[in-house]
Amino acid sequence: MTKPYVRLDKNNAAVLLVDHQTGLLSLVRDIDPDKFKNNVLALADLATYFKLPTILTTSFETGPNGPLVPELKAQFPDAPYIARPGNINAWDNEDFVKAVKATGKKQLIIAGVVTEVCVAFPALSALEEGFEVFVVTDASGTFNEITRHSAWDRMSQAGAQLMTWFGVACELHRDWRNDIEGLGNLFSNHIPDYRNLMTSFNKMSSK
Amino acid sequence: MTKPYVRLDKNNAAVLLVDHQTGLLSLVRDIDPDKFKNNVLALADLATYFKLPTILTTSFETGPNGPLVPELKAQFPDAPYIARPGNINAWDNEDFVKAVKATGKKQLIIAGVVTEVCVAFPALSALEEGFEVFVVTDASGTFNEITRHSAWDRMSQAGAQLMTWFGVACELHRDWRNDIEGLGNLFSNHIPDYRNLMTSFNKMSSK
Amino acid sequence: MTKPYVRLDKNNAAVLLVDHQTGLLSLVRDIDPDKFKNNVLALADLATYFKLPTILTTSFETGPNGPLVPELKAQFPDAPYIARPGNINAWDNEDFVKAVKATGKKQLIIAGVVTEVCVAFPALSALEEGFEVFVVTDASGTFNEITRHSAWDRMSQAGAQLMTWFGVACELHRDWRNDIEGLGNLFSNHIPDYRNLMTSFNKMSSK
Amino acid sequence: MTKPYVRLDKNNAAVLLVDHQTGLLSLVRDIDPDKFKNNVLALADLATYFKLPTILTTSFETGPNGPLVPELKAQFPDAPYIARPGNINAWDNEDFVKAVKATGKKQLIIAGVVTEVCVAFPALSALEEGFEVFVVTDASGTFNEITRHSAWDRMSQAGAQLMTWFGVACELHRDWRNDIEGLGNLFSNHIPDYRNLMTSFNKMSSK
Amino acid sequence: MTKPYVRLDKNNAAVLLVDHQTGLLSLVRDIDPDKFKNNVLALADLATYFKLPTILTTSFETGPNGPLVPELKAQFPDAPYIARPGNINAWDNEDFVKAVKATGKKQLIIAGVVTEVCVAFPALSALEEGFEVFVVTDASGTFNEITRHSAWDRMSQAGAQLMTWFGVACELHRDWRNDIEGLGNLFSNHIPDYRNLMTSFNKMSSK
Amino acid sequence: MTKPYVRLDKNNAAVLLVDHQTGLLSLVRDIDPDKFKNNVLALADLATYFKLPTILTTSFETGPNGPLVPELKAQFPDAPYIARPGNINAWDNEDFVKAVKATGKKQLIIAGVVTEVCVAFPALSALEEGFEVFVVTDASGTFNEITRHSAWDRMSQAGAQLMTWFGVACELHRDWRNDIEGLGNLFSNHIPDYRNLMTSFNKMSSK
Amino acid sequence: MTKPYVRLDKNNAAVLLVDHQTGLLSLVRDIDPDKFKNNVLALADLATYFKLPTILTTSFETGPNGPLVPELKAQFPDAPYIARPGNINAWDNEDFVKAVKATGKKQLIIAGVVTEVCVAFPALSALEEGFEVFVVTDASGTFNEITRHSAWDRMSQAGAQLMTWFGVACELHRDWRNDIEGLGNLFSNHIPDYRNLMTSFNKMSSK
Amino acid sequence: MTKPYVRLDKNNAAVLLVDHQTGLLSLVRDIDPDKFKNNVLALADLATYFKLPTILTTSFETGPNGPLVPELKAQFPDAPYIARPGNINAWDNEDFVKAVKATGKKQLIIAGVVTEVCVAFPALSALEEGFEVFVVTDASGTFNEITRHSAWDRMSQAGAQLMTWFGVACELHRDWRNDIEGLGNLFSNHIPDYRNLMTSFNKMSSK
Repeated sequence: MTKPYVRLDKNNAAVLLVDHQTGLLSLVRDIDPDKFKNNVLALADLATYFKLPTILTTSFETGPNGPLVPELKAQFPDAPYIARPGNINAWDNEDFVKAVKATGKKQLIIAGVVTEVCVAFPALSALEEGFEVFVVTDASGTFNEITRHSAWDRMSQAGAQLMTWFGVACELHRDWRNDIEGLGNLFSNHIPDYRNLMTSFNKMSSK
Repeated sequence: MTKPYVRLDKNNAAVLLVDHQTGLLSLVRDIDPDKFKNNVLALADLATYFKLPTILTTSFETGPNGPLVPELKAQFPDAPYIARPGNINAWDNEDFVKAVKATGKKQLIIAGVVTEVCVAFPALSALEEGFEVFVVTDASGTFNEITRHSAWDRMSQAGAQLMTWFGVACELHRDWRNDIEGLGNLFSNHIPDYRNLMTSFNKMSSK
Repeated sequence: MTKPYVRLDKNNAAVLLVDHQTGLLSLVRDIDPDKFKNNVLALADLATYFKLPTILTTSFETGPNGPLVPELKAQFPDAPYIARPGNINAWDNEDFVKAVKATGKKQLIIAGVVTEVCVAFPALSALEEGFEVFVVTDASGTFNEITRHSAWDRMSQAGAQLMTWFGVACELHRDWRNDIEGLGNLFSNHIPDYRNLMTSFNKMSSK
Repeated sequence: MTKPYVRLDKNNAAVLLVDHQTGLLSLVRDIDPDKFKNNVLALADLATYFKLPTILTTSFETGPNGPLVPELKAQFPDAPYIARPGNINAWDNEDFVKAVKATGKKQLIIAGVVTEVCVAFPALSALEEGFEVFVVTDASGTFNEITRHSAWDRMSQAGAQLMTWFGVACELHRDWRNDIEGLGNLFSNHIPDYRNLMTSFNKMSSK
Repeated sequence: MTKPYVRLDKNNAAVLLVDHQTGLLSLVRDIDPDKFKNNVLALADLATYFKLPTILTTSFETGPNGPLVPELKAQFPDAPYIARPGNINAWDNEDFVKAVKATGKKQLIIAGVVTEVCVAFPALSALEEGFEVFVVTDASGTFNEITRHSAWDRMSQAGAQLMTWFGVACELHRDWRNDIEGLGNLFSNHIPDYRNLMTSFNKMSSK
Repeated sequence: MTKPYVRLDKNNAAVLLVDHQTGLLSLVRDIDPDKFKNNVLALADLATYFKLPTILTTSFETGPNGPLVPELKAQFPDAPYIARPGNINAWDNEDFVKAVKATGKKQLIIAGVVTEVCVAFPALSALEEGFEVFVVTDASGTFNEITRHSAWDRMSQAGAQLMTWFGVACELHRDWRNDIEGLGNLFSNHIPDYRNLMTSFNKMSSK
Repeated sequence: MTKPYVRLDKNNAAVLLVDHQTGLLSLVRDIDPDKFKNNVLALADLATYFKLPTILTTSFETGPNGPLVPELKAQFPDAPYIARPGNINAWDNEDFVKAVKATGKKQLIIAGVVTEVCVAFPALSALEEGFEVFVVTDASGTFNEITRHSAWDRMSQAGAQLMTWFGVACELHRDWRNDIEGLGNLFSNHIPDYRNLMTSFNKMSSK
Repeated sequence: MTKPYVRLDKNNAAVLLVDHQTGLLSLVRDIDPDKFKNNVLALADLATYFKLPTILTTSFETGPNGPLVPELKAQFPDAPYIARPGNINAWDNEDFVKAVKATGKKQLIIAGVVTEVCVAFPALSALEEGFEVFVVTDASGTFNEITRHSAWDRMSQAGAQLMTWFGVACELHRDWRNDIEGLGNLFSNHIPDYRNLMTSFNKMSSK
């Protein structure tokens, strides 16, 4: 009756950022824009911090969907960047799947816009091929709570694990002693409450 | 440990619109009426666009439940139309099941009013007979969030996949290149934010 | 891959009303009191209407939990009434289980206060003994949404089906033609929107 | 088709309180602070009342995460107290696991801050090792509803049972007659509505 | 700097029930239907109980707006009943104003559907003519919270007092000793929590 | 102590539609996009229906703010259209004020995006110049509820009246008999619930 | 155009606690019970701390309304205690008004259950007699948000100032230097977040 | 009947930032922390951009309230900085009032933590002395919606104008042509949706 704990391993995980484009972002209404922007950038920062291979992809970026948000492009200048000419499910694009497989990783951390399409479709495809899939729910956005919860249910029933960027960072890091300052900075930059704790603490410590 | 991706296929799917009647619609309070109307018409439009066989059915339309909303009748003038004389579960009606089977499709996209009865009952019956069932949650309405989430749980546990009209359209279309204008129009007509993106884009492009 | 549809059958179902007591009701805060009262009475009315064997039980009714709400006592004067001297899980009470088994039914429709205790405990016990369990979520109340959703998840994962009184009534009735007036009255008495539809309809019909 | 009822047993259960630290508590925003404090103390009180072995653990308590809330330290002066030097998942800490195993219990009741990390990680680890895991959802807190529901889904799919402190208390107690006053006091101290019922009742009884 | 307390006086108040019609009620979505129905009937019951002159009026009741809800017609068989042939603002109808003035009262208690039209328009007209206006906000319904709060603001700024049926009943009654049983019954019939208090109390008192 | 009822008069009112531009609309998050689009078009339709002089204005429409939504341009081809070169407050633009004054009306019905700027600024300016100002709250949108309620409070305290499109239409129309079909069409096109009432009614009437 | 700041003065203020009775408290549903209990006790503690004359009153405490919550009785053993025999508005009771006037204070801090009756009625009466009235909104409870906001509007328009217990404490205290420890204790006992700040601070300070 | 428009003037306005301290910020729960941080920094940026004299003040910054958030200190290195030794109302501190008056401005833009104390108290004091007060509601935070709305009502009734940072920026700027790039940058840095509009626009423009 035991259940294996399928746990994120920084040596075996890649990050897929799907369709965080300036036009599509105007469709996201299940998370406030300030918070959503912060979550996406936090996920990008943790990918960089843990040196996870990261793949960027966009859908139709020359049309109304708009370009990838410049922050992501700037942060991953050397990452594979697949501007899909038309495939809605990124997994239907050979270049994308090749790039994923080229990482040699078995764990895929996926986030994107909108959740029920750009995240759910490749997540379901990857599960079918035997990958372990971790959806970053708070770095994925969609129209409203009905679309969100329908998408979550579909992915969860298919075996994807629902996580958030903070949980992903913690599960990858394992132990603060691996690098206290690094993880602390990541949290301080993306969690105002944590930054406040650190400021208060440092002020007291320096007395 | 892999899980097959049961994916909508436009050559193998039919749409069932169950009991979107003018009286019953006054019972729907888990979605705002403007949004709900838009979702139902979007589902109808995608059924037409993808040329999916569509079946209409009503419950007791000569009583207080009221007639089918005229827009649906107008849009599918040649669709099988089963005015059930009394069966609450549409699947208990032989004509309805015959119409479904006559489509020769194995994937059923179901929406209706109210979710826990008019959607859930035929969904559970169809699952029992081996159909693949996709519930369009945002084109299905009910009394409140308790009834909605109870119905979703029952259907999901039985194997139905919860989707929304936008996800259905995207999964059926597969690739923008199959028809950019067609899908764009569908989105523009039913997603104000997307229409705005297109208007801005076209204005700029025409300069 | 098919999934059997475990469907309510009026010839094989019993109703268990657990601890709807005047004191305990003050603990219910996840549903508004007007609506909750209506839901409980609707469930009682449908039990009567479908002539389902019904069992009443209370916990410590001589203490602060208070007496059973008088409406339920009045409606089921001849129902087995088990005033449990102390068992929190009704299923731990032999008289209660005997009463359930004496009905000879295999389907149990359960509602009570509070959801995570008075409903969940006997539901889990009954599932263990092979009963088919249908929880009436909107006639069961508890402290808040956290307790509600935790309880729903526990019961759903164990195999209980989550339903609401309206869905229960419809699944039991099967076909309006079995008794149009009876079902119409039930709805009219407990769904103001439906009553309004009927009033408008009757006014027009009588012209 | 029956499903065993994995039921809390006061002779076979231990309580794990993970990282209820003064700094980390400022991150909890999915439950109001008054209510959250009350839930955590209620869980502590029931652990004491049922004499369940209880284990305290903290993460980096000399840093910004802050010390354990003093009430918990005071209430369990003799409990194993593992101040983890860096492991984020308490189960990665050998002393913690030793302490858990030293209790000889197979049922683990877990609560902590934040839910998706400090609760979910040891819960998943414990499930993998064959423990029966009961998450006390309302004594566990996190950033928002997205993080909460993602964490709940991950734990529930892995086999953890989601409960709340009130349900835990009731399932452990089994029968009011085991100690009416004790359980009544526990409820009176942590449920204002129940306290009011008791006050009204006692006033009337003393007439 | 003192401010006169314009207080309801049962000898100087009349009740105006505007357009509680079966069709129009389907437009009310800012209050749940169970609760709204209860509030309207509570207002009707208090009008009867305090013997306040009551005036019924409807708008276009032979069209889609539907007939007056039968309960109100039944409860006030002898009340002036003005079926307005077309005036949207009831105060534009001479018969209605005549009926109001014939009561000889200076305080008007108004409720209706929808708030920003059927309530606000006559309220503003009555204020202009020097009446003291008390809006029963919870027996008045409208499309959503935006329309509700806009209407409340307009009426409040013009001098109307916003009250709810319970406050109206209490301000009219002044002193329980005027009739304990009468007021108790009114509350018991329309406030489930209060009914429960009374049931518990009576049970204890009869011991 | 009486208060004059400052009432909309179709012979003395003009409509100002301020900055409903495709880019700015992506900022609106206090109303769902489906509903907001419907409200704006309903206001446009009532302006046309009542033949109210209507003025269109935009801010920086060649930049990221985007063009006016095409539906409004199409509906008022001959209306004054002031593409402001930079003034944020439309009232700071001489052409705009000239256009307003050229209507000869004293009542201004204003809606726009975003509420606290494009609506509030000209509303406050117009009040200062002695106009009667009616804000159409549900055809005006902004970032969130904090910005909305702050803007409403500022305008209300300055003397603007907060209304919604439905109230505006009803106050302008005064009496159904002025044109039953016209007003009915307006409602049917923009209120799904009302359309359903009419469909049910017409079906019955035609029997 | 200046506006006098009517400011609480600890030498000129009295506290009125109206009808916080165990039965009536079950009617309060606009604030969670844990939080509400905390707010009421915080107000009691600040009254004690600032040595403000405090008056207790109850309505019909021998009936279903139930006795005063024992904590308040215990905290103010020598306070005037007016068990009103029937007056709903406490100000209609001569003994109560005498007790208020006997304090010699001109500023009245009022809280009670339910807001629109037990708070609003005496507040409006006191304003009429020239008292300065400060309503403690978060120590006053009622049925729902409609009743709350209606009551707030009525009181605010009549000149009452809406405050919360924290604001009252701060405005009375004026300067931390008057007693740092005393105010700190008050906050620590009733604001878990503040207690956590103090615990973290003290831990660091003691290093 | 006209009402003067009291309008922000960049030559006559000063900004007061009150008690945005790392400890106190953990008390803010009526706005999400990501959004709140953004709003406060946006207000700081606009103060810098419009070269408004800005005054910083803190309460007890050596105690648990914690230090001023470092970003504000860094942004206004030369601003008057009043670390109040104990006055809760900043206006009770002579140095603070001197600093305010030394600016020579008559319009005060105030934000702070917590709204009902640190903002409301100096706002009411300033109004009493004849200043024009503009409260930046979305850069001010507090415990919950009850405290927020109580504070807003008190300030609004006393004559303060409720605004948000975006409205303040727009009212100060008056005309885009004064500096398109500067205002655009301000918006781009603090409104993700606006940044996306600009990115899409620039991408298109550069083609």
